[in-house]
Amino acid sequence: MAAPEPKRQRTHPNYELLYHPTIPGRGEYVRLVFEAAGVPYSDPANEDQNNGYPKVQAICDANSTGDEEGNPPAFAPPALRVPGAGKDGKSLLICQTPNIVEYIAPKVGLAPADEVDRLHANQLMLTALDMSNEAHDTHHPVAVMLYYEDQKEESSRKAKDFRESRIPKFFSYFERVLKGNKQLGKGKYLIGDKLSYADTTWWQVVDGLHFAFPKEMEARKKEFPLLFATFYPSFKEEKGIKEYLASERRLKYSMGLYRHYPELDRQ
Amino acid sequence: MAAPEPKRQRTHPNYELLYHPTIPGRGEYVRLVFEAAGVPYSDPANEDQNNGYPKVQAICDANSTGDEEGNPPAFAPPALRVPGAGKDGKSLLICQTPNIVEYIAPKVGLAPADEVDRLHANQLMLTALDMSNEAHDTHHPVAVMLYYEDQKEESSRKAKDFRESRIPKFFSYFERVLKGNKQLGKGKYLIGDKLSYADTTWWQVVDGLHFAFPKEMEARKKEFPLLFATFYPSFKEEKGIKEYLASERRLKYSMGLYRHYPELDRQ
Repeated sequence: MAAPEPKRQRTHPNYELLYHPTIPGRGEYVRLVFEAAGVPYSDPANEDQNNGYPKVQAICDANSTGDEEGNPPAFAPPALRVPGAGKDGKSLLICQTPNIVEYIAPKVGLAPADEVDRLHANQLMLTALDMSNEAHDTHHPVAVMLYYEDQKEESSRKAKDFRESRIPKFFSYFERVLKGNKQLGKGKYLIGDKLSYADTTWWQVVDGLHFAFPKEMEARKKEFPLLFATFYPSFKEEKGIKEYLASERRLKYSMGLYRHYPELDRQ
Repeated sequence: MAAPEPKRQRTHPNYELLYHPTIPGRGEYVRLVFEAAGVPYSDPANEDQNNGYPKVQAICDANSTGDEEGNPPAFAPPALRVPGAGKDGKSLLICQTPNIVEYIAPKVGLAPADEVDRLHANQLMLTALDMSNEAHDTHHPVAVMLYYEDQKEESSRKAKDFRESRIPKFFSYFERVLKGNKQLGKGKYLIGDKLSYADTTWWQVVDGLHFAFPKEMEARKKEFPLLFATFYPSFKEEKGIKEYLASERRLKYSMGLYRHYPELDRQ
């Protein structure tokens, strides 16, 4: 008997992603799960330039002790609002990228069905997001509130270490995960034989790094063949993802989490 | 009718925490959950200096594509091994601090019973661990593999920003969470009226910062009264925790995640 399909709800609440406008940023890790699943969501800061972003700013009010629905305050975007999913049918508001992804993925069919696989998917997502944070820190190693131009020297050292030590360490790790799962995942999936939120998260990191460090990526691609020749390109052909990447909803990289400063790339 | 107690297993598997010896580090976020719950665990690197650490090193083999039990490779400690909890009764091996904590907390009675509360506990743990990472980066802003002495100038700038911008931002956030939950949690708990893994994680961050930045903490304590006068001291009196903090199992801070360099503290 075949294993049962992961449960996927047929009707969905109005998921509302609250994040900064115009950049993919950390919001993109959430968007990719919805897009791969074909499940609608709203993204007010990008959909309504006048009235959308104030909704995001409101949840990050530096004096808030929580909202009227009983949710604790938000530290920073992204956040997800889900009408009816809170206590006593109120709105749920949750923050932290991995928390949001882990919450929605099983509901939209993007989490492995098996509990052990799900623990490993979570492990891989968290490891991918660690690399995402380190990529951010290559252009902001000193202070998130200062301009890059005010921390260029430190960025240069940080980016060198990132390229020479951290990229090989993380890429070797995910290459080995793909290799270990090759029989089931054909080099396309990190866990099992289906797309999961581990894949969407790691793919977004690799794609962001292609934007930020194009020369470094080009120079590394033969070292990690499953990653570069199978996983990375085949993801772009997945149902839901192909349409999304060609759509206007897929925001362009610019001055967000992943940034291209030629002086930080391989020379 | 009173709400049901969170389910807590009466018998437990032999939980094995695999982490570096001698330092609290990220392993401490896992230890505190077991200790607060009174659930036994083994910590081989600290219990058996000769044969323990090789077990930790073995799981981080840079060529591994996974183990014989079907677990993917580990990126870095901490890891948790749970005999019998993997597929087909094999051993489960999972990594990533928040993944491990989120896995064990409900099994040992340290997670909120309500699902919404659990999502918020997860959010708070992840936010606390973000601050933990930033605290680490105050002494390693450039490269984790270099000595502090090789990145002292960058550390000085990073620590200044951490003290002046990040400590107020994170502490204000958690003070407001305590305030929002005050009626239920009496300023002692972040979520609801019981100790949870959100509390153990955030307390360990605050405690680590007391070691790393004692002058800064002393200067800040009146700004965050619930945090410093209620939450922080009352946690030390919790059942399981009081005994643990007085025991030899509680490792001393030294040259790990939290480090005391007087020149990085408030002058």
